[in-house]
Amino acid sequence: MIIIMKMGAGEEQIQEVVGQIEEMGFRAHLSCGEERTIIGVIGDERLVSPHVFELMEGVERTVPILHPFKLASRDFKPEDTVIPINGMHIGSREVVVMAGPCAVESREQLLETAWAVKEAGVRILRGGAFKPRTSPYSFQGLGKDGLEILAEVKEETGLAIVTEVMAPEDVPLVACYADILQVGARSMQNFSLLHAVGESKMPILLKRGMMSTLEELLMAAEYILSHDNYRVMLCERGIRTFDEKYTRNTLDINAVPVLQGLTHLPVIVDPSHGTGRWELVGPVAKAAVAAGADGLLIEVHPEPQRALSDGAQSLKPERFAQLIKELRRVAEAVGRGIG
Amino acid sequence: MIIIMKMGAGEEQIQEVVGQIEEMGFRAHLSCGEERTIIGVIGDERLVSPHVFELMEGVERTVPILHPFKLASRDFKPEDTVIPINGMHIGSREVVVMAGPCAVESREQLLETAWAVKEAGVRILRGGAFKPRTSPYSFQGLGKDGLEILAEVKEETGLAIVTEVMAPEDVPLVACYADILQVGARSMQNFSLLHAVGESKMPILLKRGMMSTLEELLMAAEYILSHDNYRVMLCERGIRTFDEKYTRNTLDINAVPVLQGLTHLPVIVDPSHGTGRWELVGPVAKAAVAAGADGLLIEVHPEPQRALSDGAQSLKPERFAQLIKELRRVAEAVGRGIG
Amino acid sequence: MIIIMKMGAGEEQIQEVVGQIEEMGFRAHLSCGEERTIIGVIGDERLVSPHVFELMEGVERTVPILHPFKLASRDFKPEDTVIPINGMHIGSREVVVMAGPCAVESREQLLETAWAVKEAGVRILRGGAFKPRTSPYSFQGLGKDGLEILAEVKEETGLAIVTEVMAPEDVPLVACYADILQVGARSMQNFSLLHAVGESKMPILLKRGMMSTLEELLMAAEYILSHDNYRVMLCERGIRTFDEKYTRNTLDINAVPVLQGLTHLPVIVDPSHGTGRWELVGPVAKAAVAAGADGLLIEVHPEPQRALSDGAQSLKPERFAQLIKELRRVAEAVGRGIG
Amino acid sequence: MIIIMKMGAGEEQIQEVVGQIEEMGFRAHLSCGEERTIIGVIGDERLVSPHVFELMEGVERTVPILHPFKLASRDFKPEDTVIPINGMHIGSREVVVMAGPCAVESREQLLETAWAVKEAGVRILRGGAFKPRTSPYSFQGLGKDGLEILAEVKEETGLAIVTEVMAPEDVPLVACYADILQVGARSMQNFSLLHAVGESKMPILLKRGMMSTLEELLMAAEYILSHDNYRVMLCERGIRTFDEKYTRNTLDINAVPVLQGLTHLPVIVDPSHGTGRWELVGPVAKAAVAAGADGLLIEVHPEPQRALSDGAQSLKPERFAQLIKELRRVAEAVGRGIG
Repeated sequence: MIIIMKMGAGEEQIQEVVGQIEEMGFRAHLSCGEERTIIGVIGDERLVSPHVFELMEGVERTVPILHPFKLASRDFKPEDTVIPINGMHIGSREVVVMAGPCAVESREQLLETAWAVKEAGVRILRGGAFKPRTSPYSFQGLGKDGLEILAEVKEETGLAIVTEVMAPEDVPLVACYADILQVGARSMQNFSLLHAVGESKMPILLKRGMMSTLEELLMAAEYILSHDNYRVMLCERGIRTFDEKYTRNTLDINAVPVLQGLTHLPVIVDPSHGTGRWELVGPVAKAAVAAGADGLLIEVHPEPQRALSDGAQSLKPERFAQLIKELRRVAEAVGRGIG
Repeated sequence: MIIIMKMGAGEEQIQEVVGQIEEMGFRAHLSCGEERTIIGVIGDERLVSPHVFELMEGVERTVPILHPFKLASRDFKPEDTVIPINGMHIGSREVVVMAGPCAVESREQLLETAWAVKEAGVRILRGGAFKPRTSPYSFQGLGKDGLEILAEVKEETGLAIVTEVMAPEDVPLVACYADILQVGARSMQNFSLLHAVGESKMPILLKRGMMSTLEELLMAAEYILSHDNYRVMLCERGIRTFDEKYTRNTLDINAVPVLQGLTHLPVIVDPSHGTGRWELVGPVAKAAVAAGADGLLIEVHPEPQRALSDGAQSLKPERFAQLIKELRRVAEAVGRGIG
Repeated sequence: MIIIMKMGAGEEQIQEVVGQIEEMGFRAHLSCGEERTIIGVIGDERLVSPHVFELMEGVERTVPILHPFKLASRDFKPEDTVIPINGMHIGSREVVVMAGPCAVESREQLLETAWAVKEAGVRILRGGAFKPRTSPYSFQGLGKDGLEILAEVKEETGLAIVTEVMAPEDVPLVACYADILQVGARSMQNFSLLHAVGESKMPILLKRGMMSTLEELLMAAEYILSHDNYRVMLCERGIRTFDEKYTRNTLDINAVPVLQGLTHLPVIVDPSHGTGRWELVGPVAKAAVAAGADGLLIEVHPEPQRALSDGAQSLKPERFAQLIKELRRVAEAVGRGIG
Repeated sequence: MIIIMKMGAGEEQIQEVVGQIEEMGFRAHLSCGEERTIIGVIGDERLVSPHVFELMEGVERTVPILHPFKLASRDFKPEDTVIPINGMHIGSREVVVMAGPCAVESREQLLETAWAVKEAGVRILRGGAFKPRTSPYSFQGLGKDGLEILAEVKEETGLAIVTEVMAPEDVPLVACYADILQVGARSMQNFSLLHAVGESKMPILLKRGMMSTLEELLMAAEYILSHDNYRVMLCERGIRTFDEKYTRNTLDINAVPVLQGLTHLPVIVDPSHGTGRWELVGPVAKAAVAAGADGLLIEVHPEPQRALSDGAQSLKPERFAQLIKELRRVAEAVGRGIG
């Protein structure tokens, strides 16, 4: 951490800051510029609250030097984390597609979708049993019954399952059925839940909050990693901006290479939520693969207009199958494959 | 709901939409403009997903007519909701101030703050026992021990207590100690928690998510109200914008009169989180009272530089006492008092 | 336009609205729902200010039906606009790359860059002579001398020139030197300038303001088109969001397919400004091509660390040449070529 | 400026950075932390582009120490700037109200409004002759005829005039008629215009761009101040955020005390654009005064529903007169008066 003193801060004020630094067990390092003095704090700044200094006389502001995340950083673990699921390796050369309906609505609906996505080459099925909905009047998911349907369809098709868990007390239950636990965008800073999924030791798909910074996403991952659970995938799913007239969210494509520079964890993109409109899912999915995403999360529904949730952004199976073919060409163009 | 057809949509497409409307038990109402046809859906649109129509051939988009919230709306309940707490009436003529430290750190710290804010005229003490923190390495609150301290201080000073609850399973415990349960900004769309605090029948202070629209805030309130728990206060605490260089958040002052027009629930303002810097708390607190806020939530700490959380935005007791005097003058200027 | 009456609006209020509509030469169309009355305004709503109705008694709000842009819309002109420049056709099958330094700094710098990008296959050179800079203390461009250098380099290399014009009075001058006039992001709503470049009849590269909606971008294009100048390219160059810690802007990849659905004008992407960091330019440029962009605008500088403007986002010539090769593969994967 | 080296940066890389610093005429100051080396650059960093260092091997990032604005800062000029206009002193104890219609529409309209606001105690009349409009199909102002009307009304009523200028070439003309030149939000970074109004030596009302940071606002002021024109007022008029459903903009109330801490220039608030709805103007205007604003800019129109621009946010004269009375009470409560 660096402490920037105000113009004209006196010697006494500087000495008080230095005293405070040393009292806390760190070393101080002074640099006297033409207009101001700057004081470096030597030691692990993650253990210091900046306001301790910011509230002292003569201090203008403090500047952090280290990333606040540690276990998630490439500094800590330079090589890519690879997460094996159902014969695939997320975070490796192959771009892994997870697909299925937003919500589990019935055995028939899920099974039909499952066979369709499997035929297109997919090996991980998505589908929500617990659904976070803005309105209490919207369909809230089938709950435990939905989990049972997921289990049956998994049994029948051999697909692995990714499904959302919303409350800490549901983690043990959902963990019995899922191969990957999804933490939704609205739960990204539900810290009780982060602790619980960390403790579960399951692979986790952690979605970025719609107005969370990349640093907050990495700090949320850090909660999970701090339980010694390193099988975490980060998912960019669109952020909220000033222009939501023609799309539900704004997919942050920059996030893909930025995250891959900062962290060793795999980066997944959700073009369905990232756009909110099925016509846009194809172009944006291709963009994600071209930018280097390690995986995609795509909503597929046999009858989107009858979907109980997110129908407007769901692809029909035949369109999805066509998209996978197109994605394969883009993946090859950037030296990867589709898994 | 209104369905806007594309330019050049054919008669057959229009008839299919009409058929769908009627099949769902609504009535359709056609209006043929010069360039396009518009179809009104007569009935309670809250029961219809717009994508049912948006995915039909020839449809350009749909426009909702009704607010998605109902119980929270002034249409449903025109008169102000007044919530009595500890001899005060939140939502009435008096502007109610709740004050105290961000986190309960020790019996001494809380007691000292409690007596100080009481002397300044405050009757509700804030203080967090469970703390949501961006970093797993930050102080996470004293938990149950913090609740015990709150209970002792309440007993000793006669102040009512507002404190945060973060997980549904903690609601019964926290409800034993608190007079008002706080749902924090990061939990505003933790729907399991909203159900649990609704069920508790306790007064609730619901903070707006830093990334939530006013409509989403009202929908979150709707979750609580739908449990027949009408003692809900809404709290504006600053939103996230593109400019966070000099403040932690951007306090949305417009939200005060906008919410008061849309809902019957009291509107509280938190200038401490809304600015993030103690020097700004005074001017912005005065602005909130001038704009018509029903209450204020202010962080006070005897030694901000030693605070384990949010020190930079906490007022010292003497400054707080001075601010209350200044607020009293502003409150009187707009025909209200400070409670 | 649709006028939504308040719940409980009386017959008299409805009749006044109808009277106002008819007085203005439109026809009114009533639809009485269960809770409210809705009134359609039949006629060209672009000629009506919504507040005329919004301020009438009993009116809750109005909803526009038509896009506010007309000449720029696909409804008005369904087929793609193709703009021929220097033997290429922007808006057709080939993805056109424009490249060069942010600012013209010297004859040597520009010439070296020009030959390098030409060798990589580029036929349009970018380079600013007039530079909009946030700080009055930053390099402001060489002005007319810069234009002279551009002319010499054009003569020598045969490259076409795209360069920015900042003030209406400079349009005739810059038009003497440029093949494409660039309207910068900060000038997107400089309406005097839009009129002037419209009048110039030159091809225009119109950059989206960092704080502008897609609708505002299309309305800015409409200013130019209304001068019967249809050779307009739209350029997505990154928007401002809440998270600018690791990038200068957030490239809005969704904008590519959204704009292509709304308008017939070609869509260009600027990954240099859209990210602000040279390491991110490659992945995001590939994403843009995969998403269907009609062109790219890329900053190249022989010695980025010595650049007088935007060095951090400039590619060195050898990296740029390598990127063009990679882009060619992505373009082919989506059925296009690089021009 | 501080240069933060990457973890593991070698001695050679550090020496190259030091060499570069010294080559540029600055002094380097090293601080070796536990994980990384930090290098301070001693000298006026406003003269250095950070990318010079950011592109060097081993450098992670740079941190600016000084504000980029200088003449506008309190460090440079600690005492408040006071601007005398028509017998008032903007930036002193009295809160100055400027009021009038958005656009000059006719002699009658302007004169009626002028007498009404004068009677309410106002001494500065606002009214636009040149109007920046998002759509080319909207009323664009009366231009020179509007200026003539402003002159007549000024002559007749003795009110001072604030009016917008949109293009550099119009500055001399508008300066003949106006007492204060307004630079609109969309022109805040029209640098040619900033130079021209700086050169005019007139008092300037500089509106913050709707998505401009406070730092950019101060840099725009710096352009004007650098022409030795110190009579600049800054105007907060609402920013663009993710939630624009119920208001046109989000008024940034925090900006008032933040700006007053950073700069000596007076801070004006425009609650009309800041909310976009006349019902909200009163509460937000009171908030601005309570927060310490030095002035207000309020739209008043005798017949808002017939206004050619911004009718929805205009107050009728009688409501405005009532508001002034209420504002007077709030101003007194914070130790000021209304001028």
